[in-house]
Amino acid sequence: MKRTDVNELGEFGLIDQLTNKFKKYNGSTIKGVGDDAAIINHMDGYTAISTDMLIEGIHFDLVYSPLKHLGYKAVVVNLSDIYAMNMVPSQITVSMAISNRFSVEALKELYAGIKTACDLYKVDLIGGDTTSNLKGISLSLTAVGHTSGHDEITYRNGAKVGDIICVTGDLGSAYLGLQLLEREKQLFLNDSNIKPDFSNQSYVIERQLKPEARKDAVEYFKKSNLTPTAMIDVSDGISSDIMHICKQSGVGAFLEEGKIPIKDESKQLALEFNLDPVTCALNGGEDYELLFTVKPEDLAKIRLMPDVVIIGEIAPAEDKLTLHTTGGNIHDLKAQGWNHF
Amino acid sequence: MKRTDVNELGEFGLIDQLTNKFKKYNGSTIKGVGDDAAIINHMDGYTAISTDMLIEGIHFDLVYSPLKHLGYKAVVVNLSDIYAMNMVPSQITVSMAISNRFSVEALKELYAGIKTACDLYKVDLIGGDTTSNLKGISLSLTAVGHTSGHDEITYRNGAKVGDIICVTGDLGSAYLGLQLLEREKQLFLNDSNIKPDFSNQSYVIERQLKPEARKDAVEYFKKSNLTPTAMIDVSDGISSDIMHICKQSGVGAFLEEGKIPIKDESKQLALEFNLDPVTCALNGGEDYELLFTVKPEDLAKIRLMPDVVIIGEIAPAEDKLTLHTTGGNIHDLKAQGWNHF
Repeated sequence: MKRTDVNELGEFGLIDQLTNKFKKYNGSTIKGVGDDAAIINHMDGYTAISTDMLIEGIHFDLVYSPLKHLGYKAVVVNLSDIYAMNMVPSQITVSMAISNRFSVEALKELYAGIKTACDLYKVDLIGGDTTSNLKGISLSLTAVGHTSGHDEITYRNGAKVGDIICVTGDLGSAYLGLQLLEREKQLFLNDSNIKPDFSNQSYVIERQLKPEARKDAVEYFKKSNLTPTAMIDVSDGISSDIMHICKQSGVGAFLEEGKIPIKDESKQLALEFNLDPVTCALNGGEDYELLFTVKPEDLAKIRLMPDVVIIGEIAPAEDKLTLHTTGGNIHDLKAQGWNHF
Repeated sequence: MKRTDVNELGEFGLIDQLTNKFKKYNGSTIKGVGDDAAIINHMDGYTAISTDMLIEGIHFDLVYSPLKHLGYKAVVVNLSDIYAMNMVPSQITVSMAISNRFSVEALKELYAGIKTACDLYKVDLIGGDTTSNLKGISLSLTAVGHTSGHDEITYRNGAKVGDIICVTGDLGSAYLGLQLLEREKQLFLNDSNIKPDFSNQSYVIERQLKPEARKDAVEYFKKSNLTPTAMIDVSDGISSDIMHICKQSGVGAFLEEGKIPIKDESKQLALEFNLDPVTCALNGGEDYELLFTVKPEDLAKIRLMPDVVIIGEIAPAEDKLTLHTTGGNIHDLKAQGWNHF
C-alpha cells in the first residue's frame, strides 16, 4: 500500500484531503471547516456541547481496532452524549495529534470511519485541530446538538421517587468483546501464527469496536411526546451511571437483577471467562445505551417502545442504591465503573 | 510540597476539586460542568466554535512553562480564535489527558491559570473530559462565542482589492521569547548551576508564556460600528496568516516592510541571535494579535484605534503576495509559518 508522509501535504493540504468529501446536513451550520471558528445558528433553540478525548493505549488499541472503526466509534461515542440530553446532534469537531507513524493513507481510513458516522447520524464536521504528537494518536471530539424547547432537555437531576428506571438494548457485551479481543491479542503476541477465531462472536466484537448511539430512542421520545425525567448514556456501566442520576437528583434507586438485559451469547462468553454475567452488565461500560427514568404515568408509552426494558425504580435517598437479586436478597449497588486512573 | 495522587480523588472528585471555584459570567450558560453535555442558549444569535489541541513536547515545554501559565495561555489562545471572528467568547471546555507524573496539586496550578483567564475574559468553563495519558499532558480546549447579527461576523474571505491591512500590537516577540527560553534551557541542561538571567527580557518572555487575546480590538470595533472585511488571529506568523485571507478572499496583497510593528527590545534580541527582526515578525507566530482588513472609507476609524498599525493593502489576485522593502524592492512573500509536522 502507498505510504504518503503527512509532511508532503502539510497541515492544510492534509485537512483538505481529509475533509473535502464531507456533506452538509444541517441548515444550522453556517460556516464549517476553514476559518478561525465554525459558525452555527440554532435560531431561538438550545445548544448542547459535549467533548471526549480518546488516547491510543488508554481508550483503544490499534492492534485490534481498525482505524476506520476507531473514527466511527469516536464520533458515535461523542454523539451519544448529546442524545443523552434528549437532544439531536448536528455538528462535530475532530482534533487529532498524530505521530509520524501515521501516513496520509492511514488518516484517510480514520476519516472514512468518521464520515460514515457523520452520514448515518446526519452530523456536519465543522472544524478541529491537527497537530503532531510525540507518540501514537490522540483524538479529541466535540459534538454540538440542539433542541427548540428547554422542556425537552433531559438532565441527570430530574429523577423523582417512584419514577421507573429503563435502559435500551443490552448491557455488558462491549466489555466482553474487549475481553475477547485482549485474549486473542495475547495469544497472537505469543505466537503470531495463531489466527484469532471470532466465529459466533461477531456481536460482542461489533459492540466493542463499532457501537451505535441510540438515535432511535430519542426519536421515539419526540414522536410519543415523552420526556424522560433524567437520562445518561451508559459509558461507565449502569451501576456507576445510575449513581450519577441518583446523586444529582437527590434520590436512591433499586435495580432488579433479573431484569438487567444481557444477551445469551454475552452470558455464555462471560462464563467462558469465569466472569459473572450480571457483574459484566452492571460494571462493564462502553455500552452507549441510554439509561433513563420516566414518570409512572408514562409506563404505557414505555411498553410500546422498541428495544427497551424496565430495570428498577427510583427510591427515597435514604434507601440508597440497591440491587434486588433473583434469589430475593438485597445488595448495596457498588459503582465500580471504569477508572482510567 | 504535598503530593496527592489523582487516584486518591478519582475522576469525579478531581473534576470537582478543579472546577468548583469557577464563576459564571454569562446568562447564555444554562448548564455547565456535570452532565452528559453543557447547554447554552444564544437566543436568536450566532454561535462560534473553535478548538485547539496542545501537546507537551510539541506546543509547550514544562521545563520553562509553569503550569499556571500554561493553563492561562491555553485558554487565551483558544479565545483568540473567537475574537478573530469579531465575536465575543462566552464559554469554554477543557479536556486533558494526564500521565501519573501529574499530582492533584500540579493540576490545581494548571486550573488556577485557566480560572485567571476565564475571570479576565469573562468566560464560563462548561465542561471537558479528563483521562489518563501514557506520557506527558495533552490539552484540548473548545471555545464558544456569540454575536447577535450575522453582519458582524468577520470571516477570512471578505477582503476586497483596495482594503487596508492592519495589525494590532507588535510581532515577533513571542517567537524571540521562545528562542531565549530554549537557549537558557540548553545552558541549564549543560550546567544546572547556571541560573538563567532574564533581566530586561520580561516582555518577550511574557509574550511567549502568557500572551493575551485582543478583546480590546473587538470591543473597539463594536463601539465604533466598524466591521473588518476579513480577519484572522496571528498564530502562524503574518506571512502565513495573510496568505489565508488572500486565498479565501481570492485576492493578493502587499505589505510594507517598514510598517511591520516590531518592539525595539525584540529587534535587539533578534540581532543577538543573528536573526533578521523582520523575518521573526513575519514568520515567528504565536503573537495572537489580530490581522484584519478594512474598507478604505473606514480609515478614519482605524486612525483613532489604539495599538494598531496599517501595514499594507489588498491587491488584485494577479499581484500575488509581496513585501515592499524599505530599500524600495519588491519581494514575493513566502509563508514559512509553523509546521508542526
